[in-house]
Amino acid sequence: MNPFADRNCVCELSEKEIIERICGNFGSSMPPPPFGAGDDCALIKKSLLRKNLYATSDAVIYGRHFDSSASPRRAGAKLMKRNISDIASMGASPFAALTSSIFSKNLSLEWLDEFCFGLASTAEEYGIKLIGGDLAGVEKDFFSMHLTLLGDSSTKPLLRSGAGVGDWIYVTGVLGRSFESGHHLDFQPRLREGIWLGKQKCVRACTDLSDGLGQDLRNIISSGEISAEIFADSVPLRVFTGGKASLSQALGDGEDYELLFAVRGNYMKFEKSFFAVFGYVPFRIGRIVNSKCGRPGEIYITYSGVKTLYNGGGFSHF
Amino acid sequence: MNPFADRNCVCELSEKEIIERICGNFGSSMPPPPFGAGDDCALIKKSLLRKNLYATSDAVIYGRHFDSSASPRRAGAKLMKRNISDIASMGASPFAALTSSIFSKNLSLEWLDEFCFGLASTAEEYGIKLIGGDLAGVEKDFFSMHLTLLGDSSTKPLLRSGAGVGDWIYVTGVLGRSFESGHHLDFQPRLREGIWLGKQKCVRACTDLSDGLGQDLRNIISSGEISAEIFADSVPLRVFTGGKASLSQALGDGEDYELLFAVRGNYMKFEKSFFAVFGYVPFRIGRIVNSKCGRPGEIYITYSGVKTLYNGGGFSHF
Repeated sequence: MNPFADRNCVCELSEKEIIERICGNFGSSMPPPPFGAGDDCALIKKSLLRKNLYATSDAVIYGRHFDSSASPRRAGAKLMKRNISDIASMGASPFAALTSSIFSKNLSLEWLDEFCFGLASTAEEYGIKLIGGDLAGVEKDFFSMHLTLLGDSSTKPLLRSGAGVGDWIYVTGVLGRSFESGHHLDFQPRLREGIWLGKQKCVRACTDLSDGLGQDLRNIISSGEISAEIFADSVPLRVFTGGKASLSQALGDGEDYELLFAVRGNYMKFEKSFFAVFGYVPFRIGRIVNSKCGRPGEIYITYSGVKTLYNGGGFSHF
Repeated sequence: MNPFADRNCVCELSEKEIIERICGNFGSSMPPPPFGAGDDCALIKKSLLRKNLYATSDAVIYGRHFDSSASPRRAGAKLMKRNISDIASMGASPFAALTSSIFSKNLSLEWLDEFCFGLASTAEEYGIKLIGGDLAGVEKDFFSMHLTLLGDSSTKPLLRSGAGVGDWIYVTGVLGRSFESGHHLDFQPRLREGIWLGKQKCVRACTDLSDGLGQDLRNIISSGEISAEIFADSVPLRVFTGGKASLSQALGDGEDYELLFAVRGNYMKFEKSFFAVFGYVPFRIGRIVNSKCGRPGEIYITYSGVKTLYNGGGFSHF
C-alpha cells in the first residue's frame, strides 16, 4: 500500500490533531500522562525505583530546526539542549541519551564531525552519557537526528497539571523571535532552575516553552475549571541586535526554551528564595483565574486595565 | 555551513566506518559497551536498580526497510519487533517505547492509522507501553519512525562478548532471503528464548541476527584470541514459496532476527533443556576455535572436511 495520497492525508490536520490521532490509534497501549504522551517527559515505572525515571525525545532536521546559517556545532548542541529543557521542566536531571539519525550519503564528513562535537561537548557539560542509537541512510540532501534522553529525580515529578486558581504564572526569561535572534541555537536550558523548582512545594505546575507561550500555557490550564490572565506589561520581550519581539511574537513564536511555571502562595517569599539561588528574579507574567465568567482553558490578556481574550495559537513544529 | 558536499562525504565510508567515526567523535561522552554503543542494547545505570535496565533504538524508513508491497500494519509491527529482537538478545524483557517520527504532509491518514495499529497491537501482544515521542514534518513522500525501546532483566546481561574456545555456536532458526520471503516483516522476535537463554549459565554470548550471520558472528568473536568455524551442512537455509536460500545468502543477507549464541560444555544436555521448554532444538552451526593458526576474529567454513576462510560481509542498513 502506497503511504502517500493526494486526499485524506496529514495535510488536513494541525500538528496537535496529528498527535491526537496517533495517540488515539495507540489506544490502550498508551497510558495517560504523565506515564504516556501529554507532558514534557514520560514518567517510567515509578514503583520499581527509589528514584523517578523520565524519558523524552526530540529531533533536529536540517531545513526545519536549523539551516546552513547555523554552524554544525550549534545544531548538535541544540539537539541535546532541547531535550534537556524537557527533562528540566519535570524537575529532573538528565543522565543518558540515545541518538537515531537518518542522513544521505552526500553528508559532509567535516560537517558530521562538527555536529557530533557539538552534541558530545554539550553532553559532557551536563554530565550526560551517549549510550547508543541507530543510523539509516536515505537518498540525497537529508539530515535528521532524534535524541531520546533519560533523566531521573528523587523529588516528585513536576507536571504540567496541578495549577489552581490564584497561582502566579512565571517565566524564567525573555520571549519571542527565537529564530531571528539565534536564541533557538544558543540558549541554555534551565536545568538548574528546573531541579530547584521541583523541590519547592509552592511550585504546582511546570512546562518548557517550545511551542510559544500562547500554546504552552494552554497545557497548564487544560485540566480543571481554570483559565489564565496574562499581564501584558509584565511579559518580558526579547531585545537583540537588529530587533525586538512584540507581545504577539512573545505569545506566538516557538523555541524559547524557558520554563513556564505556576507558584501558589506568597510570591515575594518565592522570588526572594529564587533570587538567593540564581541571582535573578523570574518574570511574574500572570495569574491562574477562575473560569466561571468564561470557558475553562482560556487565556485573557490584560493591558491598561482592559481584559481581552487571546485567540492566537503558537508555533507548529510540523 | 552547508551539510552536504560532493567530496569528503559519508559516501566514502562503510556503515561500520560511519558508526565508528560517530562514536569516535562522541569521545569520552560515550562509555565502552555494554554501557555505550557496541552491543545489541545499552545497559543503563546498573547500580541504581535491583534490575538491569536496557535501551535500544531502531527505525523503519519507507523505501529502505519496507516498500509499498508491505501493508502498513506489517510495517508498524516490524518497527516494534526489530527492537524487541535487540532486547531479547540481551536476555531482557521490553516494557516501554518512545516513537520519533518524520513524515511529509502528503502521508495518507488511512496508511498512518494502519501503521499505528500494527505498532500498537504488537506492543500490546508483548506487554509494552507506548509512553511518548516526537513528530516532525518534511517536504514530500517521506516516512520514517524510530523507536526507542526500554527493557529490564533480573539476570545478568547476555552480552556479545564472553564466548571462548570450544563453545558451540547456535542459531534459533533458518537464515537467508528474509526480504524475498517476507520474513523481514512477519518474523516473531525470539523474546521467550532470549529471556530463557539469559538464565542459563552455559550460554556465554548472544546477539540477534540483523546484519547477516557473516557479519553478526564477527561481533561474537571480536574480543579475545578466538575465531569461529561454521559447519556448512548445519546452517539452516530458508525455504519459502518461490525459493530457497543458498549458504552465501544465509551468511550475507540481513534481517533474519534469529538469535545467535554461544554455549559452553555439554551440548546434548543444553539441547534437551531447550527442547523441553520450546519444543524445538536450535541449530548447532559451528564452534568457537583457537586463533593460533590464523588471525583472531576470522570465520572458517567447513564443507566436506575442507576448511576455507570466509571473507564476505553482511547486509548494510545504510
